[in-house]
Amino acid sequence: MTLTLTPLSNIPRILTGDNLTEIILDGLKQEGIQLQDGDILVLAQKIISKAEGRWVNLTEVTPSDRAVELAGRIEKDARLVELVLRESKEVLRTRPGTIIVEHKLGFVCANAGIDHSNVAGEGSREAEWVLLLPEDPDRSAQVLREELERVSCVHVGVMIIDSHGRAWRLGVVGTAIGLAGMPGLVDLRGQPDLFGYTLRITQIAAADELAAAASLVMGQAAEGTPVVHVRGFPYQLREGSLREILRPKEQDMFR
Amino acid sequence: MTLTLTPLSNIPRILTGDNLTEIILDGLKQEGIQLQDGDILVLAQKIISKAEGRWVNLTEVTPSDRAVELAGRIEKDARLVELVLRESKEVLRTRPGTIIVEHKLGFVCANAGIDHSNVAGEGSREAEWVLLLPEDPDRSAQVLREELERVSCVHVGVMIIDSHGRAWRLGVVGTAIGLAGMPGLVDLRGQPDLFGYTLRITQIAAADELAAAASLVMGQAAEGTPVVHVRGFPYQLREGSLREILRPKEQDMFR
Repeated sequence: MTLTLTPLSNIPRILTGDNLTEIILDGLKQEGIQLQDGDILVLAQKIISKAEGRWVNLTEVTPSDRAVELAGRIEKDARLVELVLRESKEVLRTRPGTIIVEHKLGFVCANAGIDHSNVAGEGSREAEWVLLLPEDPDRSAQVLREELERVSCVHVGVMIIDSHGRAWRLGVVGTAIGLAGMPGLVDLRGQPDLFGYTLRITQIAAADELAAAASLVMGQAAEGTPVVHVRGFPYQLREGSLREILRPKEQDMFR
Repeated sequence: MTLTLTPLSNIPRILTGDNLTEIILDGLKQEGIQLQDGDILVLAQKIISKAEGRWVNLTEVTPSDRAVELAGRIEKDARLVELVLRESKEVLRTRPGTIIVEHKLGFVCANAGIDHSNVAGEGSREAEWVLLLPEDPDRSAQVLREELERVSCVHVGVMIIDSHGRAWRLGVVGTAIGLAGMPGLVDLRGQPDLFGYTLRITQIAAADELAAAASLVMGQAAEGTPVVHVRGFPYQLREGSLREILRPKEQDMFR
């Protein structure tokens, strides 16, 4: 079955308090898409954070001693470093300009996902505003899912993604940070392969595969489109959570 | 623009020496797909390895002392460990059943990508055959690309993918191991974002994003389809290589 990813081309600039459900439904209508059972909507983290008003004004952040020390060492704004530390459980690595952390939400990412590009604030001191990740992306996805299902009367999945760097490889890829109504991992344990052997690869990170796919069509630059409609996701929709994908720290060989 | 990924449903079991170009062209014809400029074909590593005859009979492998020692420690077949070591530059981590290596080809993966599932050999001692990765996946992709372009008279990209585990997150995702006629990384440096700031995220691992997308529709089980046709890849096709994506060891904080 063909997998189709369609970026919605008419999503407006999102402001605090905006009703994303209405905006998504309008965007779908403008593309001529009627939601069907099994469809998934993939949203860029930025629009969730903006709708939730996750702005912080750097001028109101007082860096701790630890933040000042680290900021000096990696040549970064101490107030931003302070926010990164507040948003994180643990610092894994540092290098100039970058702090790799385990975010409070449980995943590993650079600078706690705090965005200081493409996110001009809504006030007058624009350059001083930064945007934190959504407070609970699984919950944000679940709320949107419930509203979309209520209006459309079909079962859909919702996923929130961000761009993450990786160990070992260059470049960022779209990565799931929250989801609802769809699997994070798909477990194929016990299924036979083409020759009747039992499958060796048993867990597919299906949500991350779809996040990467959606990221491709979102774009990162001026023409960015933060909502992607997906049809043909090949696995059964079900209740799901980002927590399925997070490798327990004690099983992680690369920390 | 919509991105569509269509798995070709009639790819036969591949044998050593098979002409993959003909098989792909037949598969496209059966799906009613005519190649267009900018299309990409994504192939599972297994069919390249099989066509190239990358089978090794474990009964003919004599493990070194190092392989025997490591095999005992991680409870794995010493002959398989010997092959993993021969195919690798460096062992990064080990745990029961798994050796994380830098493959000779430059990427980090488990067990040097040596497949011992879904790859029954062509002889009578089936269980003793394993399949190595293609010798030079960039070159394999380039050969296929040239043949497909010659026959179809349009510019296409070709990518070879495998399923790789990740640091920090559970599950495998489709990952590029060779490519031709398409970018590995897309560099957005200097492009303005929505508000005129310069983009912070400058390098997109576009090939890996597409690999993950294609992997979704390939499936891993009995109904697996090892060739996926892609239309709507949003970046310009150009000469490319997997080497673009490999993080130089000295810049890697997670080894």
